[in-house]
Amino acid sequence: DKDLYQGNDFAGVVTGLAWTSVGGEILFIETSLSRGKGGLTLSGQLGDVMKESAVAALSYLKANADRLGIDYRIFNHYDLHVHVPAGAVPKDGPSAGVTMATSMASIFTQRRVKPFIAMTGEITLRGKVLPVGGVKEKILAARRAGVKEIILCVKNRKDVEEVPANYIKDLTFHYVDQVDEVLGIALLPEKVNNPMNFVFPDEKKEKEESGFVTMTV
Amino acid sequence: DKDLYQGNDFAGVVTGLAWTSVGGEILFIETSLSRGKGGLTLSGQLGDVMKESAVAALSYLKANADRLGIDYRIFNHYDLHVHVPAGAVPKDGPSAGVTMATSMASIFTQRRVKPFIAMTGEITLRGKVLPVGGVKEKILAARRAGVKEIILCVKNRKDVEEVPANYIKDLTFHYVDQVDEVLGIALLPEKVNNPMNFVFPDEKKEKEESGFVTMTV
Amino acid sequence: DKDLYQGNDFAGVVTGLAWTSVGGEILFIETSLSRGKGGLTLSGQLGDVMKESAVAALSYLKANADRLGIDYRIFNHYDLHVHVPAGAVPKDGPSAGVTMATSMASIFTQRRVKPFIAMTGEITLRGKVLPVGGVKEKILAARRAGVKEIILCVKNRKDVEEVPANYIKDLTFHYVDQVDEVLGIALLPEKVNNPMNFVFPDEKKEKEESGFVTMTV
Amino acid sequence: DKDLYQGNDFAGVVTGLAWTSVGGEILFIETSLSRGKGGLTLSGQLGDVMKESAVAALSYLKANADRLGIDYRIFNHYDLHVHVPAGAVPKDGPSAGVTMATSMASIFTQRRVKPFIAMTGEITLRGKVLPVGGVKEKILAARRAGVKEIILCVKNRKDVEEVPANYIKDLTFHYVDQVDEVLGIALLPEKVNNPMNFVFPDEKKEKEESGFVTMTV
Amino acid sequence: DKDLYQGNDFAGVVTGLAWTSVGGEILFIETSLSRGKGGLTLSGQLGDVMKESAVAALSYLKANADRLGIDYRIFNHYDLHVHVPAGAVPKDGPSAGVTMATSMASIFTQRRVKPFIAMTGEITLRGKVLPVGGVKEKILAARRAGVKEIILCVKNRKDVEEVPANYIKDLTFHYVDQVDEVLGIALLPEKVNNPMNFVFPDEKKEKEESGFVTMTV
Amino acid sequence: DKDLYQGNDFAGVVTGLAWTSVGGEILFIETSLSRGKGGLTLSGQLGDVMKESAVAALSYLKANADRLGIDYRIFNHYDLHVHVPAGAVPKDGPSAGVTMATSMASIFTQRRVKPFIAMTGEITLRGKVLPVGGVKEKILAARRAGVKEIILCVKNRKDVEEVPANYIKDLTFHYVDQVDEVLGIALLPEKVNNPMNFVFPDEKKEKEESGFVTMTV
Ligand SMILES: [Ca+2]
Ligand SMILES: [Ca+2]
Ligand SMILES: [Ca+2]
Ligand SMILES: [Ca+2]
Ligand SMILES: [Ca+2]
Ligand SMILES: [Ca+2]
Ligand SMILES: [Ca+2]
Ligand SMILES: [Ca+2]
Ligand SMILES: [Ca+2]
Ligand SMILES: [Ca+2]
Ligand SMILES: [Ca+2]
Ligand SMILES: [Ca+2]
Repeated sequence: DKDLYQGNDFAGVVTGLAWTSVGGEILFIETSLSRGKGGLTLSGQLGDVMKESAVAALSYLKANADRLGIDYRIFNHYDLHVHVPAGAVPKDGPSAGVTMATSMASIFTQRRVKPFIAMTGEITLRGKVLPVGGVKEKILAARRAGVKEIILCVKNRKDVEEVPANYIKDLTFHYVDQVDEVLGIALLPEKVNNPMNFVFPDEKKEKEESGFVTMTV
Repeated sequence: DKDLYQGNDFAGVVTGLAWTSVGGEILFIETSLSRGKGGLTLSGQLGDVMKESAVAALSYLKANADRLGIDYRIFNHYDLHVHVPAGAVPKDGPSAGVTMATSMASIFTQRRVKPFIAMTGEITLRGKVLPVGGVKEKILAARRAGVKEIILCVKNRKDVEEVPANYIKDLTFHYVDQVDEVLGIALLPEKVNNPMNFVFPDEKKEKEESGFVTMTV
Repeated sequence: DKDLYQGNDFAGVVTGLAWTSVGGEILFIETSLSRGKGGLTLSGQLGDVMKESAVAALSYLKANADRLGIDYRIFNHYDLHVHVPAGAVPKDGPSAGVTMATSMASIFTQRRVKPFIAMTGEITLRGKVLPVGGVKEKILAARRAGVKEIILCVKNRKDVEEVPANYIKDLTFHYVDQVDEVLGIALLPEKVNNPMNFVFPDEKKEKEESGFVTMTV
Repeated sequence: DKDLYQGNDFAGVVTGLAWTSVGGEILFIETSLSRGKGGLTLSGQLGDVMKESAVAALSYLKANADRLGIDYRIFNHYDLHVHVPAGAVPKDGPSAGVTMATSMASIFTQRRVKPFIAMTGEITLRGKVLPVGGVKEKILAARRAGVKEIILCVKNRKDVEEVPANYIKDLTFHYVDQVDEVLGIALLPEKVNNPMNFVFPDEKKEKEESGFVTMTV
Repeated sequence: DKDLYQGNDFAGVVTGLAWTSVGGEILFIETSLSRGKGGLTLSGQLGDVMKESAVAALSYLKANADRLGIDYRIFNHYDLHVHVPAGAVPKDGPSAGVTMATSMASIFTQRRVKPFIAMTGEITLRGKVLPVGGVKEKILAARRAGVKEIILCVKNRKDVEEVPANYIKDLTFHYVDQVDEVLGIALLPEKVNNPMNFVFPDEKKEKEESGFVTMTV
Repeated sequence: DKDLYQGNDFAGVVTGLAWTSVGGEILFIETSLSRGKGGLTLSGQLGDVMKESAVAALSYLKANADRLGIDYRIFNHYDLHVHVPAGAVPKDGPSAGVTMATSMASIFTQRRVKPFIAMTGEITLRGKVLPVGGVKEKILAARRAGVKEIILCVKNRKDVEEVPANYIKDLTFHYVDQVDEVLGIALLPEKVNNPMNFVFPDEKKEKEESGFVTMTV
């Protein structure tokens, strides 16, 4: 049931690939923003490692906001919620890192996620993508769900090459080394339909009040 | 005793359906608002999964407040309390998600809940309704309690079709895919008697002080 | 020793009825207010369910403050402490709900508690009173302690009717469905001797500063 | 060693009586104030019940500050620390309640503690003193340490009467029902040598800024 | 290795004496200050009792700041960190109390610690020094490390007298009853080389803004 | 895979040496800064001792900011995140202390880390470097990964001398006693390419508003 591909029509919904004791599965990382003060909520019975993954993804996006086209004020004036259905299924591990980062980048930029794409890979704080396990099982699950493109760490290429060719002939693989490559592939340049209108304190007033200046150390 | 239908005369009281080791049961999700600063209290011996369900329901309503006719200022100037009697009975699982969302939407909009309706279904952060278990037992419990309409995930239709027809001949079923459909069915357009008067900081002053402007990214 | 009735001369001291493995007992819910910022302290080795009970009682009073004649500013400018002696005896369960609500309402309004009255019953967030167990044992304990009136949920009437008539001939029973009925019975219209003088920030100044207005949604 | 009476020359040092598996013992409750924002620190490996005891004592003093001659501003502008040596010995139970209250009242008023006095008794939030166990053992320990007066709950009188007369012929007993009686006996009217000079924000300014008014509800 | 005496050239580094299952050892209490808001960090795998010891030492210094020549503003405008190497070795117990207090007093006053001195003793909130165990083993460890003077509680004198005279003929012992005596012995009147320059908000402005006045209660 | 040397092109990425039950390994400490309020996030399944190590490293840099050329305002206006991949591998122990300190110093100063260098050593709060275990295994791991220079505590020199000469003939060893020496060796004077532009509140305004002055105690 949850293995059916459900489309990526919303900002902040990205397809990941999980590997459990009973085989591969697709999962959906959902991210939403609501007006607030920079809070972060993680739900879906996520384990410690997966939570740290989400926090690292957020730190990466914050530290590289300008370059990635993210309005920094969102981090201060909105709350972020990351949820991974199904709500009762415990989930853990670092392999959803790239999916978390893509989901967050989509909601922050309101850019549309490329359809029929899935991904798996650990990320580090400097944006490096690390290889993960269970690649064969994840590929089979993605294929069953109608996924057409898969993003993986370049170091997982050897695992793909061990999958019989006829299983993967309809799939396109993207091998990456950096989160930025993932975002370039998975996020389309266009915005979703009905993008959020972000609301911030009056820019001019804020500048007057807090008087920020830019300095190079 | 607690299986008796008790009416839905208050804003924020919605009937859910639970499935325990001893069969199906109805339960009431109660929600109240009091002046505060956006706090959230959950009570009734709720487990982790059910708490995350409530938080996801709230995030959904916050992220879609404008579209759903909810005054965003309530989130900042009121505290929300969600309680599920009976207070001593531990409860868990994601299936009260739609009920939580409906209860909160009712208190935020002060719209009356449709009488004799019950519901069960997991929700996700983007407002998708997911199927749940124990449908047959839940239907029987709802019927015993005098419920006349039941809202379920469209993927639970097959479970309803397995219930002998004479058990369900008096019941109307609504099959949904999105929380918005649930709210459209379960919340009447009219307000409850004696609706709350929400009190906010003076709008004009607030605008002057914080100077919010709306921008499209 | 603690089964002796001790009078109800202070605002915020209300007699409840507990049921333990060794029979029924009376207990005293004590509530005090001191200048602060809306904090809540619960003590007396209270278990999770009993703590949630206290929080639900407070939410009910906050959400219905105007109707109940409670000055809302007390919630923001005072700290509330609820204590249940004896301090070393662990206590739990939802049945002190009505007692908690009455104790808090008494301290907030400074209304005198009716003498020789005791009560037991769970409350819900919308103010409904639910039935509890151990009614026979609780009645016997109340009688031993000199209690003359007892408030119970209407659904506990059948439990009272099973108690031999000669045990209860001196007792008056009040059967209720709503917390408001409890407060109407247990709180006298007059204030306690030497009622607290609540101190608030200057009303006019506050209005100027925060500029609250009332709106109907 | 720690059973030697050490004098009560400092504000906030009061002698209590403990009862352990190896007999009675005296203990010293020490309280200190330092400029801060109303924080409370409890140390000395205190158990849950004893911590709740301290919090109840503080709530009692706050709620009755005016009547007890305590400047309310101390609660907002100072941090309170209660410590019970020896630091490595776990301690628990409610019987230090009166000692805690007396120690705090002494530091708040800077009144000198009566010399050669000790006490034991649970307190409740409304200032009632409840009886405790181990009275015989506690009396013997007090006597060994040079204590000359002991404050007890009136309900502990019967326990004293069971102690052979020659053991207690040199001791004066005070039987009390209320914390206020304890304070009246144990705190001398005079201040300690070199009392603390409390420092508060400028009273006139504060009144202007926060504009407090007194109202009777 | 860690038993070698390392000099006391920095403010806030003081030598303590520990007693473990394998004998006595010296340890170093390190304290540092950095600009902040009065935070306290304790590290070095310290147990509950040792942490409470540090908090009591700090409360003592705060409550007696004026008398001890400590600028009270440091407590509000700096964060204090206390660390006890080696970082992986769990440590507990109250006997480092005097060492903690001396280390903190040194960093707050920037006074130099006397060279070749070590100490051990519990402290209480009113500054009393209590005796500790393992005195013989601690003395031997101090001697091996090159320590020349040791500060102990006066009640530990009898333990020193049991150590064979030839083991301690090169050592000077200071027997104390109060923390103030410890500080008088262990802290030299002169400042360390390159003392910290404490930075505070403009004194005149602060006075204007917060308008503090001194009152005697 | 993770044993391959990956270059040190980013500020805040420093190579450490770990010792596990299966031998030595290199690991990368990654540090990032994003605009915030002085928060600290530690991730990578770090144990208590390793977390305390990070906090001690940060306290050292804060307490010595001026001398180390770190703009103190970064501590107040940025959040620091330290991550140690791989995210699912639990890590503990104090030996990454020097690596943590170097990684943080690099991100705070934006100075480039020397290429092909690795390090291991505990640090203390006053900046002392302590010896660690597993030196032989760590050296072999560093060599396999292409490391050319290794920084160690001077007290680990004897451990290096026990490694057969032909294993270490291509390696340069730096023996240090203080963190400052580590930073002097591992951080190049030049900045990384595209250094961060730190953004602070307007210096002039800030000075006016908070009015800081420098005083020597
Ligand atoms: Ca873990
Ligand atoms: Ca994944
Ligand atoms: Ca869980
Ligand atoms: Ca349900
Ligand atoms: Ca529980
Ligand atoms: Ca009760
Ligand atoms: Ca407990
Ligand atoms: Ca006692
Ligand atoms: Ca403990
Ligand atoms: Ca020591
Ligand atoms: Ca630990
Ligand atoms: Ca290392």
